[in-house]
Amino acid sequence: MCFFSQNGTKKSWDCMQTHDSVSVLIFNTTSHCFILVKQFRPAVYMTEWERSKPKPLQPAEEESAEAAPAEPKVPEDDKAGEASEGTSSHQPPASAGVTYELCAGLVDKPNLSLEEIARQEVLEECGYDVSVTKLRKITSYRSGVGVTGSKQTMFYAEVSEENRVGEGGGKPQEGELIEVVKVPLHEAMTFAFDESIPKTMGVIFSFIWFHSNMSPKYKISTNV
Amino acid sequence: MCFFSQNGTKKSWDCMQTHDSVSVLIFNTTSHCFILVKQFRPAVYMTEWERSKPKPLQPAEEESAEAAPAEPKVPEDDKAGEASEGTSSHQPPASAGVTYELCAGLVDKPNLSLEEIARQEVLEECGYDVSVTKLRKITSYRSGVGVTGSKQTMFYAEVSEENRVGEGGGKPQEGELIEVVKVPLHEAMTFAFDESIPKTMGVIFSFIWFHSNMSPKYKISTNV
Repeated sequence: MCFFSQNGTKKSWDCMQTHDSVSVLIFNTTSHCFILVKQFRPAVYMTEWERSKPKPLQPAEEESAEAAPAEPKVPEDDKAGEASEGTSSHQPPASAGVTYELCAGLVDKPNLSLEEIARQEVLEECGYDVSVTKLRKITSYRSGVGVTGSKQTMFYAEVSEENRVGEGGGKPQEGELIEVVKVPLHEAMTFAFDESIPKTMGVIFSFIWFHSNMSPKYKISTNV
Repeated sequence: MCFFSQNGTKKSWDCMQTHDSVSVLIFNTTSHCFILVKQFRPAVYMTEWERSKPKPLQPAEEESAEAAPAEPKVPEDDKAGEASEGTSSHQPPASAGVTYELCAGLVDKPNLSLEEIARQEVLEECGYDVSVTKLRKITSYRSGVGVTGSKQTMFYAEVSEENRVGEGGGKPQEGELIEVVKVPLHEAMTFAFDESIPKTMGVIFSFIWFHSNMSPKYKISTNV
């Protein structure tokens, strides 16, 4: 991650270590569900918190009122209790910081291949033990070109109930607050384009990729 | 954009202003081409620069050699001459910082709707004057959930040669270095999944969205 900074007459790039990343569209062939992770994201929460602040009535105010969305629909109970303690009138509930995402992780282990890192994330976050040979690369692209410019590689993995060896949930000791979520195949495209459900573009793209590439195999109607 | 920082015993969130954004998939119905922008991205360049540094032979080295991609294929001449001056052996060419992206912009004008901001970006970056009523919302999603958590809304706009009123190119005075690029419809899916062409997920997603939603209208073969 790089920032252009000016200190007196000195201009320079300040760079933090940026890691590439992997993400995995997981399809459970037993239950015909996609496996996503639902995660509390501090950056999303803080953005919503900033957005919810009372707007001063000044012409110079930069925040666009029209850009402010309705509060995201997150049907389940608040999973981040601490963050909602002491809520004042303009602080959104912790659920406002939750997003639905593909299982994903940083490429920060020098001795592992992208596939091996993806396999580890599937195991840690979602509880499925899947062979690296079962991972199919969908494609790669640049993420966050304005900020990080790192490369993300997306995989597709089919799993079955037999591959399920744990609960997933990530690594709480590393600050991860992850819940495994199933999205039934027949609801996938509705889920993808329901803007009241906060999600990443990776979820939408991978669902539509599946629809284009895998639907014939599973003879599905994806209600689009 | 928010960072969690610790200063002595004081822990706090440091937040910078984060803007939502809009992006637009533009399809020229006269030439049957998608209109993209090709842009030099400092963050991408710096990431490639970091990646290209000679690796110390230390077990603690964090960068994964397997994650290092081949140099991106950017067929045209280097458009960012200054950045490549004084290139040393490990500095990549400026073309390594170039990405293909949808026309896009920040939601930073409080009195304009998302559609009006999208319209302005199409005009400034790509030179097409398109009515806001011609903009069709594809969907919205969270971008950069680990860093910014802002919301991006994607639109689809059909334009014709009659709508072309300028060259586009963005605002050089604001540091934008943008080239308008046409991708013929029949090459779009090959372009989307050619990993040697550096691009954002928005390009890939919107092309596959078009393939799923608009292909019947244009009776196209998109070679997938």
